[in-house]
Amino acid sequence: MSTDSDFPRWMAAVQQRTETALGVFLPPSSQAPTRLHEAMRYAALGGGKRVRPLLVHAAGHLVDAAPDRLDRIACAVELIHVYSLVHDDMPCMDDDVLRRGKPTVHVEYDEATALLVGDALQTRAFELLAEGQLAESPAAQLGMVALLAAASGSHGMAGGQAIDLAAVGHQLNRAELEFMHIRKTGALIRASVLLGARAGRPLADADHQRLDHYSKQIGLLFQVVDDILDAEADTATLGKTAGKDAEHGKPTYVSLLGLNDAKAYAEELLADALSTLAPLGERGVHLQALAEFIVRRSF
Amino acid sequence: MSTDSDFPRWMAAVQQRTETALGVFLPPSSQAPTRLHEAMRYAALGGGKRVRPLLVHAAGHLVDAAPDRLDRIACAVELIHVYSLVHDDMPCMDDDVLRRGKPTVHVEYDEATALLVGDALQTRAFELLAEGQLAESPAAQLGMVALLAAASGSHGMAGGQAIDLAAVGHQLNRAELEFMHIRKTGALIRASVLLGARAGRPLADADHQRLDHYSKQIGLLFQVVDDILDAEADTATLGKTAGKDAEHGKPTYVSLLGLNDAKAYAEELLADALSTLAPLGERGVHLQALAEFIVRRSF
Repeated sequence: MSTDSDFPRWMAAVQQRTETALGVFLPPSSQAPTRLHEAMRYAALGGGKRVRPLLVHAAGHLVDAAPDRLDRIACAVELIHVYSLVHDDMPCMDDDVLRRGKPTVHVEYDEATALLVGDALQTRAFELLAEGQLAESPAAQLGMVALLAAASGSHGMAGGQAIDLAAVGHQLNRAELEFMHIRKTGALIRASVLLGARAGRPLADADHQRLDHYSKQIGLLFQVVDDILDAEADTATLGKTAGKDAEHGKPTYVSLLGLNDAKAYAEELLADALSTLAPLGERGVHLQALAEFIVRRSF
Repeated sequence: MSTDSDFPRWMAAVQQRTETALGVFLPPSSQAPTRLHEAMRYAALGGGKRVRPLLVHAAGHLVDAAPDRLDRIACAVELIHVYSLVHDDMPCMDDDVLRRGKPTVHVEYDEATALLVGDALQTRAFELLAEGQLAESPAAQLGMVALLAAASGSHGMAGGQAIDLAAVGHQLNRAELEFMHIRKTGALIRASVLLGARAGRPLADADHQRLDHYSKQIGLLFQVVDDILDAEADTATLGKTAGKDAEHGKPTYVSLLGLNDAKAYAEELLADALSTLAPLGERGVHLQALAEFIVRRSF
């Protein structure tokens, strides 16, 4: 288990610098089209645990990556995440009115604006990764763009969302549920870790494989915990509308395994993630603490 | 004026190879998530004049770019265009039921699928530009990704769409209408030309400036002609629902200038675009013919 007593301070610092960087990387709301830019900032700023930026910075710590590179990568990944939230919240998808304790974008603005906000946030994410110097070579940086795209597209996050939609009202088995979540949540979590690790000195193959395994385990962990949270928490604690999964007849780890077994599975994934990182020693301390943080946020 | 008698054959060949390349670059509908992939193919294949791919290939002709590079670039630009059509057609935007003579994606499938189709097509566009070798150096290729993003995002196409939305029911003056269209349609048209021109040997600065001016003029030309088409054509000819602009109270060049002056403006833009290209000689022949084609499709 991690003994990273500085973790809360490190986490707060990364969250703060991510907020600052997002503020810089998003167009000012004084710039035309002002309403779109205001809504993009509304969607992306002032909320969220910034789990993906934390993973980018924690993985970057392993390879001594320059913090300003990590800020840019973290914002790119976070903007992909935020775009997906804005679109998922829309009436034709999850129809959620509350996100991070605030009205969702289509409620605060309107549906057409929410659609464009998501579209433009995705574009900005790829623009961020294509600019500046984020890796040792432009070729490596092109690979980062491709990696983020693969994680976000129809074989990654958007594909997972499509499988999730198709699954409403159906009984999925555990393999099918895993297939969905590896894409829906896991792919972007994994990309966060791998992109952060590409921003500094090269990793040994064995360490890269450890990191990849860790990233897959915490991707699942994140979703299992999310399902537990949704089943247990009330709306005020969660900052978004609780119990929507059950209401929508969506399969979850809780509906499939039951609450106790879902919690046991989370502990198992956590233990595996932590032991995978152990050989990395002190350099992996933030990644270990983050795995624990993902679990601790619920139980 | 162009004397490119081979133009119809060249155009058909580019359209055909674009269709083939899109078929290869889009995930097969046999691959999970099958419904999403089927809908992505439904949206992108089997229709459209492929104006942007034609511009990519015509500009690539100027610099002797390899055709397989141009296919990839053409598909990236076309997928951005198709994603924007899918989202624009949704009920919360233009609420169109017909596109390229077929039911729109949200009608043929459902709204949630249309949302994800647009999202995933945009992602695939950036993935295409980040893979393969499209320019003389990876650094130049990163610049191509950034150029497409700038043309597509909140300062480009998506921004123009937002301005268009905000303008419904308002009277715009000519400068405001131009400001909108330079973004909404012009930015991606311009990107098509500039990206094609970056795929081969370097252009002299003066030629690059000519090309940039040409691309801006035909971007406007395209929109003016679109407005004329919408005002004049019936639904069957247009392959999409006609007269929607007037119905939605949207400002157009026709509503602002009147039909005759809009047509005169189109002729003026065409003449300017053609004379701009004249110093490029024979190599600019496809670009000249395309400018004429954009006008000829209506009157």
